[in-house]
Amino acid sequence: MQDAAETQVARLGEPRFPSPLPARGFRCVDEAQRVLVHADTQDIAADIAAGRMPPSFELAGPRSSLYFPPTDVSAGIVTCGGLCPGLNDVIRGLVLTLWHHYGVRRILGFRYGYQGMSSNRQYPAMPLDPVAVANIHETGGTILGSSRGPQDVDDMVETLQRDRIDMLFVIGGDGSLRGAHGLARRLTERHVPISVVGIPKTIDNDIEWVVRSFGFSTAVEAAGAAIDGAHVEAKGALNGIGIVKLMGRHAGFIASHATLSNSDVNFCLVPEFPCQLEGPRGLFHALELRMSRRQHAVIAVAEGFGQDLLSDGSNTERDASGNVKLGDIGTYLRDRIGEHFRKLDVPVTIKYIDPSYLIRGIPANAMDSELCVVLAQHAVHAAMSGRTDVMMGWWHHRYTHVPIPMAVRGRRRLEPDSPVWQRVLETTGQADLLDFTTEASETEAALP
Amino acid sequence: MQDAAETQVARLGEPRFPSPLPARGFRCVDEAQRVLVHADTQDIAADIAAGRMPPSFELAGPRSSLYFPPTDVSAGIVTCGGLCPGLNDVIRGLVLTLWHHYGVRRILGFRYGYQGMSSNRQYPAMPLDPVAVANIHETGGTILGSSRGPQDVDDMVETLQRDRIDMLFVIGGDGSLRGAHGLARRLTERHVPISVVGIPKTIDNDIEWVVRSFGFSTAVEAAGAAIDGAHVEAKGALNGIGIVKLMGRHAGFIASHATLSNSDVNFCLVPEFPCQLEGPRGLFHALELRMSRRQHAVIAVAEGFGQDLLSDGSNTERDASGNVKLGDIGTYLRDRIGEHFRKLDVPVTIKYIDPSYLIRGIPANAMDSELCVVLAQHAVHAAMSGRTDVMMGWWHHRYTHVPIPMAVRGRRRLEPDSPVWQRVLETTGQADLLDFTTEASETEAALP
Amino acid sequence: MQDAAETQVARLGEPRFPSPLPARGFRCVDEAQRVLVHADTQDIAADIAAGRMPPSFELAGPRSSLYFPPTDVSAGIVTCGGLCPGLNDVIRGLVLTLWHHYGVRRILGFRYGYQGMSSNRQYPAMPLDPVAVANIHETGGTILGSSRGPQDVDDMVETLQRDRIDMLFVIGGDGSLRGAHGLARRLTERHVPISVVGIPKTIDNDIEWVVRSFGFSTAVEAAGAAIDGAHVEAKGALNGIGIVKLMGRHAGFIASHATLSNSDVNFCLVPEFPCQLEGPRGLFHALELRMSRRQHAVIAVAEGFGQDLLSDGSNTERDASGNVKLGDIGTYLRDRIGEHFRKLDVPVTIKYIDPSYLIRGIPANAMDSELCVVLAQHAVHAAMSGRTDVMMGWWHHRYTHVPIPMAVRGRRRLEPDSPVWQRVLETTGQADLLDFTTEASETEAALP
Amino acid sequence: MQDAAETQVARLGEPRFPSPLPARGFRCVDEAQRVLVHADTQDIAADIAAGRMPPSFELAGPRSSLYFPPTDVSAGIVTCGGLCPGLNDVIRGLVLTLWHHYGVRRILGFRYGYQGMSSNRQYPAMPLDPVAVANIHETGGTILGSSRGPQDVDDMVETLQRDRIDMLFVIGGDGSLRGAHGLARRLTERHVPISVVGIPKTIDNDIEWVVRSFGFSTAVEAAGAAIDGAHVEAKGALNGIGIVKLMGRHAGFIASHATLSNSDVNFCLVPEFPCQLEGPRGLFHALELRMSRRQHAVIAVAEGFGQDLLSDGSNTERDASGNVKLGDIGTYLRDRIGEHFRKLDVPVTIKYIDPSYLIRGIPANAMDSELCVVLAQHAVHAAMSGRTDVMMGWWHHRYTHVPIPMAVRGRRRLEPDSPVWQRVLETTGQADLLDFTTEASETEAALP
Repeated sequence: MQDAAETQVARLGEPRFPSPLPARGFRCVDEAQRVLVHADTQDIAADIAAGRMPPSFELAGPRSSLYFPPTDVSAGIVTCGGLCPGLNDVIRGLVLTLWHHYGVRRILGFRYGYQGMSSNRQYPAMPLDPVAVANIHETGGTILGSSRGPQDVDDMVETLQRDRIDMLFVIGGDGSLRGAHGLARRLTERHVPISVVGIPKTIDNDIEWVVRSFGFSTAVEAAGAAIDGAHVEAKGALNGIGIVKLMGRHAGFIASHATLSNSDVNFCLVPEFPCQLEGPRGLFHALELRMSRRQHAVIAVAEGFGQDLLSDGSNTERDASGNVKLGDIGTYLRDRIGEHFRKLDVPVTIKYIDPSYLIRGIPANAMDSELCVVLAQHAVHAAMSGRTDVMMGWWHHRYTHVPIPMAVRGRRRLEPDSPVWQRVLETTGQADLLDFTTEASETEAALP
Repeated sequence: MQDAAETQVARLGEPRFPSPLPARGFRCVDEAQRVLVHADTQDIAADIAAGRMPPSFELAGPRSSLYFPPTDVSAGIVTCGGLCPGLNDVIRGLVLTLWHHYGVRRILGFRYGYQGMSSNRQYPAMPLDPVAVANIHETGGTILGSSRGPQDVDDMVETLQRDRIDMLFVIGGDGSLRGAHGLARRLTERHVPISVVGIPKTIDNDIEWVVRSFGFSTAVEAAGAAIDGAHVEAKGALNGIGIVKLMGRHAGFIASHATLSNSDVNFCLVPEFPCQLEGPRGLFHALELRMSRRQHAVIAVAEGFGQDLLSDGSNTERDASGNVKLGDIGTYLRDRIGEHFRKLDVPVTIKYIDPSYLIRGIPANAMDSELCVVLAQHAVHAAMSGRTDVMMGWWHHRYTHVPIPMAVRGRRRLEPDSPVWQRVLETTGQADLLDFTTEASETEAALP
Repeated sequence: MQDAAETQVARLGEPRFPSPLPARGFRCVDEAQRVLVHADTQDIAADIAAGRMPPSFELAGPRSSLYFPPTDVSAGIVTCGGLCPGLNDVIRGLVLTLWHHYGVRRILGFRYGYQGMSSNRQYPAMPLDPVAVANIHETGGTILGSSRGPQDVDDMVETLQRDRIDMLFVIGGDGSLRGAHGLARRLTERHVPISVVGIPKTIDNDIEWVVRSFGFSTAVEAAGAAIDGAHVEAKGALNGIGIVKLMGRHAGFIASHATLSNSDVNFCLVPEFPCQLEGPRGLFHALELRMSRRQHAVIAVAEGFGQDLLSDGSNTERDASGNVKLGDIGTYLRDRIGEHFRKLDVPVTIKYIDPSYLIRGIPANAMDSELCVVLAQHAVHAAMSGRTDVMMGWWHHRYTHVPIPMAVRGRRRLEPDSPVWQRVLETTGQADLLDFTTEASETEAALP
Repeated sequence: MQDAAETQVARLGEPRFPSPLPARGFRCVDEAQRVLVHADTQDIAADIAAGRMPPSFELAGPRSSLYFPPTDVSAGIVTCGGLCPGLNDVIRGLVLTLWHHYGVRRILGFRYGYQGMSSNRQYPAMPLDPVAVANIHETGGTILGSSRGPQDVDDMVETLQRDRIDMLFVIGGDGSLRGAHGLARRLTERHVPISVVGIPKTIDNDIEWVVRSFGFSTAVEAAGAAIDGAHVEAKGALNGIGIVKLMGRHAGFIASHATLSNSDVNFCLVPEFPCQLEGPRGLFHALELRMSRRQHAVIAVAEGFGQDLLSDGSNTERDASGNVKLGDIGTYLRDRIGEHFRKLDVPVTIKYIDPSYLIRGIPANAMDSELCVVLAQHAVHAAMSGRTDVMMGWWHHRYTHVPIPMAVRGRRRLEPDSPVWQRVLETTGQADLLDFTTEASETEAALP
């Protein structure tokens, strides 16, 4: 449960400058407008009984009073971590809103993630204006480039100062937002009034307080095409088995929603719910039954599934982002299933598809494209008003300000009684064949 | 504002039969689980202060106790009104859930809307089973056919009785849901225990308490392709003007969201906000400015915009659904703009695009496809539990039961300070050029 | 029949400069390499019997000797007439080949068709280089803009001289190629050694000696989507009739190939083969039969079909390109069919789709994109070698040089025994219902 | 060079039955209509000089006289080898033409390739009619299933006799066509008058005398999407390298055409032209140069490239089709390139994409769909006329009859001076960096 304090957004100081927007006919957000964190009656019953307003988020949107003098501002933008559909839409939305709405004329794009904010960066920051971003949303990826991993915080503070940046927009996931929080905290400690605003980027859709992150719906759509391919291959061969590995390190949202939007998945395997390969309620036996009844099967497996099967638990190698390197569950399943049916002397044809790099780099679809624009517009409004250490959220049909510490306290995951997972069970019928156990809940390291 | 009584869902009687689902591992919804109607703090402040739970919706989902004996049920399905992406997905979802989850073996599809439920129907109802619906979601439209307009209520009651139907699923819009309500009321009056469950179908996305209706995101995506076409034509000619007429009889959601997801729209005109053609803050002058500055322009206009411009207000012709027949604002604008620039002796090239029939009939995209499946699953759960006169809603990240009278009391529309409209102004910059007035709020006829 | 003289390509003079390409490993075309105009044995039997090589085209491709000193050349590019998928691909291909292969550094794009080559042009020519064209192929239309209609020839000659152009690439259709021929002739008369090279642009695919023009396959693919929409609408209503108007002023290639690639068309109506509406072998009666048997129908009609039905023959209005303005056969058919069934008191639902502006402006598909690149490469090779008054052809699996006079002597059309038309009859079965008469063969005005 | 005898098509006997088609208005092909095998003047000069008609193919199309009594025929269909877009279109075209044009009412589909024609087949043949094939073209793959490898010829002959088949349509590649030839020969030897007609299936487009095989254009289009993904990933990382492995065991047509239609490929590697990895004109050095100049690179590699690099030449393992099993050049290149740059201490980010199973199973695009329909129509016409041991060809804008022995004598490959390969060099500029050697020409085993 959240308490009210946790939803409090940090500010650099009192807003002192009038916004140019009301004069042009735009309505500004009243600072009192908020939306509940929880809307399920059971979650708020105690507060109600006590006559106390339950915890709520500040609404995002333009403010009538600004902290920064609008035309005298320098803004920086950085994209971090893996590619995700919509990155260029966000960059473009930031630049156009800064330029056209607030008259900002100095906008710098840091190259290749936080690396471009370090003193030993390989490339200087890239000046951005409406011409530079005119058509970038038609192409996937990020024109700024990206990279994984943190940089020294003081080094980044000094880069921002050297580049005379007033507000920094960080488009990144869980790890990068932790980095943004560390940066914001150090800026405060060093009394440097730079606003740090995060735009949540997670193709896995596992950041808290964002009901659907940008790129996710595009990714689910594209995952469906891969599942179609697996299904056609599976049906085209006698005893065909199609395996599609989908993104999802910690959470099975892409695999689950792709399953729900595509009727061809028979087994949907996600990190949250391990299951056995062997035994009467294991995957092999379930596949045997499916083969004998229908002669083909399609498996959608999230990359984070079954890490326990792959290793003895001693795997501690990490990538530059600090994520534990995952074993390749897709080829593992392919090989083990093949071996199993060979032992049974049942000829099967297994086709394995890993479409990740075909999904991450496509342009955003219409829904995601709009989401990117709106997140970008609100991020600019937030920064101009002096908010800092804040992430843009989308919750209960409203765009919100979420303090970054609150956003990165945990990760969204499927729970056993989560409606999405229940519907996956309902749609695939896999509950009749497999026993799923639930992993212990992820315990995130406390924020420093 | 809603009061609690209005959210109360009608039931045919006490549930008496155990559901087969828990035994297969599915979690059922606790009847006490509800989600708030309003989550904005200002909307619920008075209730909170009074220590009173604000109005809330019942959650949708499987119930452990059923009103109907699951395997001894006959179900009917009817699709009404204009085409919308996803109709076949809903039909398929209903059939698969009835068949596989509850063992229902008698499912009838009424042909061509309510006409197929009348005694003088042209075609008998069509038996449906998993084979009949296997691949129908890959094609747009509805395999049942559709039609507009109501039928005699008693005649429909008698058809249902003759066809021995226990539960009727109505996939339709505002008008059809009113029809469904009339039918449910008459069934009650005549003590016929048939459940009537509505699945909201509105490509315009203007039904209340459904945050995004199925087919809407597909339509917005397709509208974007039409806007691209208009933009390319406009840029390809000296002083090119591209006009795209989009769906939206009463509400400009498609035009607005297509504008937000596509950066090429310069003027977005919607039914809710009339504006003048002539005068210094009228469309013609705005176009002149745009032409002289940028030499091309793209206009997205919702079909319901500017009906006052087209007529002397005496237009009362109605289509079979009882909707006032709209004048054709698209060709009207095309002709008037052409005339205007001819008078000015400025040569312009106008290209007019009406993509409606290219949008309504396409298959649902992944997001909509999932939405259709889930709405269908929940509609079946609701009917089995004995709910009636109820529509499936989607609200605050939950699927809900909305009493049909509450759902059809009004229509969703853009309000002047609606964030979506504000973002349209922000994105197009049209607020700088045009004066928008707000129409008086739509006053819907009270339900009979 | 062609004679050998007609296939002779004009040259500005003897090539004097060595090409830079052989040194970089490219094979050059031997001037003796030619490909037959006709490969059907019956067409060449007489020549064979006489021991005489039948008429043949010069192969396109790089030459080892150039007329122009490669690095000291100025090139001009102009796009004329209606939009067509691939225009930007051709522009880009020209620029990249000129720049990277021959070291040309001065490339000018004339704006808005031949209008941009007149002394009263509204915009100066636009400098082009690899950066300017980097991503233009991802967008439909033409970055240069286009317009219809000719300009004074001497005025254009003088513009070219003023702009110091050595070679002009004209991307345009029949009319524009006639213009290019007139220009080339005048240049010769005035002893101005400028090469004029045409790249055939016809979305209708009706230019001679080009087996498939760029944009055509993209257009057929997109037409299929419109037919799908019509089919879904037709099936979704009782007695539904879907009508799709497709491009094709003089030739029904788009309608025919869209019919062959899409199984849903029941009647394919093209300019070459008029048929009656009334009478026992007319369209109305055929529709009645179809309605009574299948309750829905899809009609694909080319815009040039049935012009005799629309007018008393006195229609002589012409557009800026000099084309006779076509009456709108689509809305005419819609209205007449509606009227017919109203008289019969058979309720039908007619949906009319005109997708033209949604097709012309889309980006080229992969096949067309490659075709554009190759035509552009070969056009540059031809110009560098001093060819003029020449169009790039594609014939018998070879890229060729076609003298423009030969190319514009007639237009490609479907003939009654053309295999494509026979297959349309075979696929739709419409020959069983309709009587088609053949129009007298088009007699094109002789070239001036 | 071909001689006339080789182009002679085998027939089961004299046609004796009148075709029903002329009475319905279809024009039949005159048996004298032929099209040249070679249309390049240099290839036919000797024949011309001798006053001798050069070799030519018989035209495909309906014949006025049939060998089989049309309504008393049983037809069989089999699909063999790997999946390819359009298989279902061909099956559908065969069934519809047999049924609607010739009144054939007994059509059997053999399941899972030649395996379904053996006495120990797992599934009986599947009856096909217009209802069974109504929408199958909207889905990729083959409803009949497929498999690799031959079966005993006599066993297949006996199956055909037991199933009372008069004509067999084999949709398959090089290997399957050899099988069809063997079958046709054995049928002749055993005096069994069954017609064997081949429809060439090769996603690699490497069958002779078919200028573009069905599925190829769809595959090139889809390959472009994979290359886009690789390009976006490569540009999104500092020193990013994207590698896409494309289909093409013996011939690099997919890789080459995908390169020509997509401007992002820097290195296109095909089986026909080996090159070194090491050395001053090897791939590693070329990549180093590219990295230092542009910081990213995209490599398209056909699966058959570089097999010499992978093995010591002793690899003789074969798959069920008898093809030598290829080593995985994609992962090999990925690993070797990674290793190379690690040694140089240059950090690179390599993304490897293998989209094969996402390409083979998609539905055919419009061009391919039409091609499938026409090949199917012509295959039926050929069989009805009593042709056997014949494959449908597409050559010089005509559909032709190609004797299977002539078709399988060799394979189409890129030659060093093939225009397509020259254009690949021209487009990528790779000739400036790499030395390509040509493999010895493939020597196909003579047909038994």
